[in-house]
Amino acid sequence: MRCEVVAIGTELLLGQVVDSNSAWIGEKLAEAGIDSHFQVKVGDNIERVEAALRIALDRSDVVICCGGLGPTQDDITREALARVMGVALERDPEMVAVIDAILAGRDRPCPPSNARQADRPVGASFLRQTLGTAPGLACPVGDKVVYAVPGVPHEMEDMVERAVLPDLVARAGERATIRSRTLRTWGLAESVLAEMLAPRLEYLDAAPGGPTVAFLASGMEGIKVRATVKAPTEAEAVAALDAEEQMLRSILGDAVFGVDDETMEHVIGELLGQRRWSLALAESMTGGLVSSRIVDTPGASTWFKGGVVTYASEVKLNVLGVGEGPVISEECAVQMAEGARKLLDTDVGLSVTGVAGPGRQENQPVGTAWLGVALPTGSEAVHVRLPGDRVRIRQLAATSVLDLLRRRLLALGPQ
Amino acid sequence: MRCEVVAIGTELLLGQVVDSNSAWIGEKLAEAGIDSHFQVKVGDNIERVEAALRIALDRSDVVICCGGLGPTQDDITREALARVMGVALERDPEMVAVIDAILAGRDRPCPPSNARQADRPVGASFLRQTLGTAPGLACPVGDKVVYAVPGVPHEMEDMVERAVLPDLVARAGERATIRSRTLRTWGLAESVLAEMLAPRLEYLDAAPGGPTVAFLASGMEGIKVRATVKAPTEAEAVAALDAEEQMLRSILGDAVFGVDDETMEHVIGELLGQRRWSLALAESMTGGLVSSRIVDTPGASTWFKGGVVTYASEVKLNVLGVGEGPVISEECAVQMAEGARKLLDTDVGLSVTGVAGPGRQENQPVGTAWLGVALPTGSEAVHVRLPGDRVRIRQLAATSVLDLLRRRLLALGPQ
Repeated sequence: MRCEVVAIGTELLLGQVVDSNSAWIGEKLAEAGIDSHFQVKVGDNIERVEAALRIALDRSDVVICCGGLGPTQDDITREALARVMGVALERDPEMVAVIDAILAGRDRPCPPSNARQADRPVGASFLRQTLGTAPGLACPVGDKVVYAVPGVPHEMEDMVERAVLPDLVARAGERATIRSRTLRTWGLAESVLAEMLAPRLEYLDAAPGGPTVAFLASGMEGIKVRATVKAPTEAEAVAALDAEEQMLRSILGDAVFGVDDETMEHVIGELLGQRRWSLALAESMTGGLVSSRIVDTPGASTWFKGGVVTYASEVKLNVLGVGEGPVISEECAVQMAEGARKLLDTDVGLSVTGVAGPGRQENQPVGTAWLGVALPTGSEAVHVRLPGDRVRIRQLAATSVLDLLRRRLLALGPQ
Repeated sequence: MRCEVVAIGTELLLGQVVDSNSAWIGEKLAEAGIDSHFQVKVGDNIERVEAALRIALDRSDVVICCGGLGPTQDDITREALARVMGVALERDPEMVAVIDAILAGRDRPCPPSNARQADRPVGASFLRQTLGTAPGLACPVGDKVVYAVPGVPHEMEDMVERAVLPDLVARAGERATIRSRTLRTWGLAESVLAEMLAPRLEYLDAAPGGPTVAFLASGMEGIKVRATVKAPTEAEAVAALDAEEQMLRSILGDAVFGVDDETMEHVIGELLGQRRWSLALAESMTGGLVSSRIVDTPGASTWFKGGVVTYASEVKLNVLGVGEGPVISEECAVQMAEGARKLLDTDVGLSVTGVAGPGRQENQPVGTAWLGVALPTGSEAVHVRLPGDRVRIRQLAATSVLDLLRRRLLALGPQ
């Protein structure tokens, strides 16, 4: 069964509001095993809403439209649905009473325009509201159906979960479960990762019914490799994902740092926690970014002590005890990491020094960085070249230095 | 002229990524006075991308499609465009060389799949890439045109502003100019700001053809008050905006900290620069967030020396010389600001200490913060209570401490 989402509202087209409703519904449909091939945004214009609904009904079995159910003149979803169904609108006296009761409970004046929300196309049924004043609608069109739900996200989510999805799943009859799992990688270029995965993707393409694998470059979050399976039961889906994860890990090796929602910071926290080691930072080019990402990680206070932002070169010397010499260098990165470790009295020190731009520094090109790590077992620094503008270079440097620590901690073996 | 946006990517339909690109493009089109009646999301499927492009070309004059220009097998935008144009794809040797040069600069191996990004439909022209490896495409279809741009937001934004919008505006010929200006405020609750502006908004409502004014709560960026005018010429639009800005400033006073893209960090840099003063930070609850926002500001290296992240309480004592006692306190905030000022040898020290959550600390509720400022003229700290979850509390604390410095520097009078 195919379900199309139509989001209604001029503010969505003007970019005043980002349409996150369609993404939320798309995720729920995928979880329920229902295909969604198109999602459309259209403004508060009755002819264009009608046109969008007709195109959607032409290529999909079911349409969910969000928004345009409010009490004002802008809210034209009900009229557009009546046109598509070829019927009149009628006002439902029982729903008028329901809306009056909701508004009375809020101690708010009840303007007559709210009664518009009790209108429905002849032959449509209401989806009861539990949060806002606007009821939803289920509108049969031939053997297809259009559901209309409010555009306010929490009202929409409540109505879709409570009234629309169960109905959809029942209509779809026997259905499959769709589950996916994301492996998060760092350190491989997208094209390198593509070449590594190519034989596996070709194999999966030739074996219909098996998992599908796709990957997505996600900036400082790395490249995400997602396996998706469709199976008759939850248990079979999970078993197939377990097997595919194992296969993908054997191909990608230690480039895989986490699964699903695990961030790099989270993984670092786990690895440090195993050894009861604490961390201090010395940040130059990243200017506090690594630190601010770490403190957003739940539980970071058990392993993160703090750091020094040495944006001016003299601070590297005076506060961290770095020696004279070039600051975009292996020596400086090592001394910064060691200096932070010593100053904050931690087990591990980590440092970033480099050129975020806009111009060259110490005759080094923009994107040059040295990442330093000081462990109880010794210190070192590695060189990287990062692409993008200064914001992106900083983000990539932040994840890169955390990944360096991850690899060094893994290399120490299990604790 | 009507422009439709087609966002390509299965991850958008599945809700794994929210399509913010279309909203961004929609905003730019509106600013340029170009109508956008529909925006569509479609997955990585060549037949469906082709169908979406044909529908878009049928009802709009211009189409911008985002995404699907990468090097992998998933990336089918080029093929779909060739089908819509009824032509073959050809590989451009000059673009192959450009892509090779970009990848060589990154010290990364250059696998053959990247050469796919040098393919273009016969008759299409490239839009040069300045950030990623994928060039864009301008594809004539009859008297209409489809622009294809990357799906990575910063690459898309760069290419649309640099190459697509100027071309679109030229194609649109004579048109009304729509211009807007945003006053950025901090320190007033939304309801207070609404009351202050109510008489002005009523006056403007009753005077059609004049500016429209709207406001939008924007988290750590404050509440934005936007005036928009439509006028026959650029000069008339700017004159009307100048007059409206003056009126709004007379109402909102020093709550207005900046205009349009001016961030709080930018304003602080201007004020410190006037006195040739330097800044050091001591961050506890914000964990480096203030610092990382500052270093994203162009020119920050002339006034920002760095800071200390004192996430563990002992670091406040050992590194900043704060005395024993509660750390969520006025005394601690003052000593942190003074300690950072002394340690980094700057004119100004700024500090944040407080409870970001999830639990209470020192029996203080979540959201409690003390903001400290140490100037050559003396030190002080102020108390604030901030709403939201830990991420939001940190963001609000970061802007609040910068606003404290802004107000103290303004109070010192012109230099």
